Amino acid sequence: MSEPLPQGAVIGILGGGQLGRMLAVAAARLGYETHIYDPDPAAPAFATARHGTVAPYDDAGALAAFAESCAVVTYEFENIPPEALDAIEQTASIHPNRRALTLSRDRLTEKTFLRDLGLTTAPFEAVENTATLATALEAIGTPSILKTRTLGYDGKGQIRLDTPEDVSGAVDAIAGAPAILEGFVSFTKEISVIAARSTTGAVACYDPGENVHRNGILHTTTVPAEVTNRDRTDAVLLAGQILNALDYVGVMGVELFVTKGGLIVNEIAPRVHNSGHWTQLGCAIDQFEQHIRAITGLPLGPATRHTDVVMENLLGDDVLKLPALADENAQIHLYGKSEPRPGRKMGHINRLKPTA
Amino acid sequence: MSEPLPQGAVIGILGGGQLGRMLAVAAARLGYETHIYDPDPAAPAFATARHGTVAPYDDAGALAAFAESCAVVTYEFENIPPEALDAIEQTASIHPNRRALTLSRDRLTEKTFLRDLGLTTAPFEAVENTATLATALEAIGTPSILKTRTLGYDGKGQIRLDTPEDVSGAVDAIAGAPAILEGFVSFTKEISVIAARSTTGAVACYDPGENVHRNGILHTTTVPAEVTNRDRTDAVLLAGQILNALDYVGVMGVELFVTKGGLIVNEIAPRVHNSGHWTQLGCAIDQFEQHIRAITGLPLGPATRHTDVVMENLLGDDVLKLPALADENAQIHLYGKSEPRPGRKMGHINRLKPTA
Repeated sequence: MSEPLPQGAVIGILGGGQLGRMLAVAAARLGYETHIYDPDPAAPAFATARHGTVAPYDDAGALAAFAESCAVVTYEFENIPPEALDAIEQTASIHPNRRALTLSRDRLTEKTFLRDLGLTTAPFEAVENTATLATALEAIGTPSILKTRTLGYDGKGQIRLDTPEDVSGAVDAIAGAPAILEGFVSFTKEISVIAARSTTGAVACYDPGENVHRNGILHTTTVPAEVTNRDRTDAVLLAGQILNALDYVGVMGVELFVTKGGLIVNEIAPRVHNSGHWTQLGCAIDQFEQHIRAITGLPLGPATRHTDVVMENLLGDDVLKLPALADENAQIHLYGKSEPRPGRKMGHINRLKPTA
Repeated sequence: MSEPLPQGAVIGILGGGQLGRMLAVAAARLGYETHIYDPDPAAPAFATARHGTVAPYDDAGALAAFAESCAVVTYEFENIPPEALDAIEQTASIHPNRRALTLSRDRLTEKTFLRDLGLTTAPFEAVENTATLATALEAIGTPSILKTRTLGYDGKGQIRLDTPEDVSGAVDAIAGAPAILEGFVSFTKEISVIAARSTTGAVACYDPGENVHRNGILHTTTVPAEVTNRDRTDAVLLAGQILNALDYVGVMGVELFVTKGGLIVNEIAPRVHNSGHWTQLGCAIDQFEQHIRAITGLPLGPATRHTDVVMENLLGDDVLKLPALADENAQIHLYGKSEPRPGRKMGHINRLKPTA
């Protein structure tokens, strides 16, 4: 695409969760309209978009009509069935591209891609059944983690193995789904890089943020991360390497483990990322706007940070703290979800720490 | 209202222009839904709100149904017919209140209110016809400006009188509408204060911004304004005085002239204000969120500025500069208007100047 999409063009977004909602708002700020596609009529993004389709991801007719109405299609989550892409790609182009999407929805292809790129990952082996798990366990050792190849997120679909005796129960626990066994990595902290690449191949990376998890779910991201300059530079360079290798267009989240021996790539997400929400307060151009710029053919903006930020997720009943939170010099983002179930991401708060 | 509105409550917004649009986005960020009311189906705010009514402001039935669907009603412009308020107030409360609205839509009642409060305004006299204009002109002198009492904005409905001979044409030029004659004020600059007041009477004021107009339309607002500490303090204090006197709930824009003898109040606007758009980049809590907090009964946030900002309006064809503007470290806000007519506000850009 040589010219940016014209004002008023419609951007399709697969998935109407909080990420889709914040993408829709960013698109509006750049003069674009959005069309949200989600099976759930209560999905938060419908409230901030002009157009909406409520239909399952395997409804080829609804997907085709959706694609027909859009100048470009993007998505807020990676677990999109390939058949949905087939239906859409007849008429609309999809960013980030299919390769990035299909690769990252499968832990085995993702880790293989990263290793083939010369990057360091945790040791891993493919696991199909109890027998191959035993073989994998010999290679990887314990402690290790058995993870389903697809559909896992926020710690779901994962079983920790502390001794070889845990084998039999583990395969049952993931219902025999194709999996990988990952070795434990001894890391000092987790950081992530939010990186963007434009249709012309320009790359912009935000400062790495330092992530703290609770119960397998992101709790806080603090920027800047306390890491060595070398790790900071390596993080940004390897993110650029990944984007270029995929001929990627859009924003990607790259999760990294910091170890004494250098950085280990944990996971990539071909979309805007929870650990990039701090950019809404810390940067003139946040990750959501950057993604919209990328997929519409606009130039990327600088990923410069003008202030230090701590982002904290509001899970479940945390949202009830709102009146008290409102007293702080902090930016509140709520997602408009009606049921504050335990562990459910209801919103986040960006706290400002002015740079000295 | 003692408890804040619950998550998911619907906020009604009269007027679907860019201010309504940015209010709707701020409401979404706090977990509220919005219902936009505007006679124009192409109004920008419909694209970012869940609910919309397209109907004229004198359609009592549509207004009643609109009010019925809302937990609270606010507005983005002051030229709302009193009959519309009648229809709404049967079922929903309106913030800011009726007194602030009716007072500020008439230059004569507005200026009289400000003068009665002990504040300095430009000298003014009521004008009903050519005869009273001649009398007023004797009191005020030339140069002076004849302004319609209602419906004037962005320099519309104003005629400058340089000599007493201009009298006869002037009344014709404003079609005999009720008017006021204002004396010229010799000022060094115009500043404005964006001030907010909560349901509990708490007041928060943003730093005064310095405004530059072109052709009677706001061109840039720079924050901080270059003024003396005394003027800065006076500006904030008098804004608070105005809000308290009106028992005001919501955000107000207060335009001030800086003169050697102190501050002169030019105009008040009972709504979020173009000269407050810089808060989107300069503050954790911007004027739109502050307004939503006020009218929903949430505590106000701090109006602290963490960075210096220059806001520039994009008028008419300015919007075509977009790809070039996108290269800057600046925050772009476009309103999604389809026709870039000359002088029409199409968007704005917030440029960041990190504080030294």
